[in-house]
Amino acid sequence: MELKKVGEFGLIELIKKKVFKCTNKIIVTIGDDAAIVKSFSGKHLILTTDTLLEKVHFDLSYFSFRDLGHRALAANLSDIAAMGGLPITALVTLGLPSYVSVENVLELYAGMNLLAKKFNCPISGGDITSSPKGLFITIAVLGEVERNFLTLRSKAKAGDLICATGELGEVHAGLELLQKGKKNKRIKFSKSLVQKHLTPQPKIFEAREIIKKLKPNSMIDISDGLASEVSHITQASKLGAIIYESEIPLSPKARQAGKILNKNPLPWRLYGGEEYELLFTIPKSKVKRLIKLSKRIKLTLVGEMKKERGVFLVKQDGKKERIKRGGFRHF
Amino acid sequence: MELKKVGEFGLIELIKKKVFKCTNKIIVTIGDDAAIVKSFSGKHLILTTDTLLEKVHFDLSYFSFRDLGHRALAANLSDIAAMGGLPITALVTLGLPSYVSVENVLELYAGMNLLAKKFNCPISGGDITSSPKGLFITIAVLGEVERNFLTLRSKAKAGDLICATGELGEVHAGLELLQKGKKNKRIKFSKSLVQKHLTPQPKIFEAREIIKKLKPNSMIDISDGLASEVSHITQASKLGAIIYESEIPLSPKARQAGKILNKNPLPWRLYGGEEYELLFTIPKSKVKRLIKLSKRIKLTLVGEMKKERGVFLVKQDGKKERIKRGGFRHF
Repeated sequence: MELKKVGEFGLIELIKKKVFKCTNKIIVTIGDDAAIVKSFSGKHLILTTDTLLEKVHFDLSYFSFRDLGHRALAANLSDIAAMGGLPITALVTLGLPSYVSVENVLELYAGMNLLAKKFNCPISGGDITSSPKGLFITIAVLGEVERNFLTLRSKAKAGDLICATGELGEVHAGLELLQKGKKNKRIKFSKSLVQKHLTPQPKIFEAREIIKKLKPNSMIDISDGLASEVSHITQASKLGAIIYESEIPLSPKARQAGKILNKNPLPWRLYGGEEYELLFTIPKSKVKRLIKLSKRIKLTLVGEMKKERGVFLVKQDGKKERIKRGGFRHF
Repeated sequence: MELKKVGEFGLIELIKKKVFKCTNKIIVTIGDDAAIVKSFSGKHLILTTDTLLEKVHFDLSYFSFRDLGHRALAANLSDIAAMGGLPITALVTLGLPSYVSVENVLELYAGMNLLAKKFNCPISGGDITSSPKGLFITIAVLGEVERNFLTLRSKAKAGDLICATGELGEVHAGLELLQKGKKNKRIKFSKSLVQKHLTPQPKIFEAREIIKKLKPNSMIDISDGLASEVSHITQASKLGAIIYESEIPLSPKARQAGKILNKNPLPWRLYGGEEYELLFTIPKSKVKRLIKLSKRIKLTLVGEMKKERGVFLVKQDGKKERIKRGGFRHF
């Protein structure tokens, strides 16, 4: 059977059924942002991995090696953030085609180093291989999380408010500008949008702050677009959700990018991937605390968890429609 | 600068100098079989990763997906064995070209499952991506090792005896037979050699038995040929070594393979890669215990650690020569 017949998530479900699992030592397995290894001390271990492949996930025509290194580690650290944890160390695997130079490789590591230092995540090994076609970078990160900090996508409750960090849509605006070669230095705002796509900041500290202050029922990182991540939470929690489009502001920068590109920027808020922001759900009773915290961390209320399955969007004009899941599919 | 100008190990040295390290939590970093994370409980954590890339590490013309899955996990578990540890869990990353089917992917996991069960190493996550050119499999394994079991390549002592497990040269004989299409079912012996290459058995239990009975000063797994691994031990331990060619038996099966292929099988013992056997060094005082243990585990004394740097081979005819490091180089 062809891969595209079952699709990426169908394939993952099939694998999940088949593989050897061992639930007495693994709390969270295939299908979440990261695996969680049960610990008998105060902290669980987190293990996650993420791959960037040339022409699939990035293009060297607009990515410098330094930005690419940064981005590769950021994607992994974002998964650690989604679990409420802190990184311990990273392993870096590189598949290097012959057109990559020694200097390129060292620039890659220089980009990783910035984040590695910021989050105290030393790079302690990996694997290097030649690659006949195309550069790839696979990083695995080991992390840890206090038992009472662990926050999963599967524990949302009906009635929970759904909240997101950051300015949704800006990362995708940056990608569109890059792809259209609109990294125009005369347009001041475009630089910051483009930089958001090239060097996203994992929300490790923000996640821990949110957990400390709000103790969310569930959390996930937005690696695949808001709509897709809300779907993931509803599926894992066996619930549904409503998203209120009018509640999600479009930043002035994203709006400007839309004008320049002659594109409707509104869907970017829902379907733009790789934002590496956080999506979490909290009981309504915590709304005051949410408002207080939003003075320090950019937070947006985007919707509500519902008992009835399905994810629905209440559009700007008040019409309600079942939401497209969106997000990038590999098959 | 081109990669081949500094070479694979030169590149690793450059990276090691540049990356953010954090020695208060990482005991063993880049350049060893695996990273070791210091633990304040009784056990250290081990983190390792290994990649198999189509046309670089394997060829689908003679690898079934089941064997490939087995082999990919075996390579990683062998690194855990080299440290004296036990696996906790594995993450599997797949880069899938369009000619791979759903059934192929499930066969890959079936092959991994066999080893995962044997060594209690559940597969708890990973990443799946489309790959425009060529299949790749990157596995990361988290393991643990009791503080007093941890055995590193860097702790060999001058005067130590150098020992290896298994029948050296047989894995390479299997590879040569496969590459020449000599997987002839009429030739009984060839099947077992070929199988040694396709589905190597990581020596996790043997490593722990050796540590319990012999407490070796240093250990490494033979992933790159005996000569190359002896070099690694001498470099990490800042010592030299002598290997006695006459001490390393050539198995009757490897000898027969040499005849069929019309090739000299003797170098296979020294330069044949991916054996996933163990190489370790012990003080001479433990030779009696070594003999006793060799009744249960196939062990061969291959040489001796020396104060004087350099690795020398005393050949069958008594002549001494500086050894070629051998092993596969990616650049």
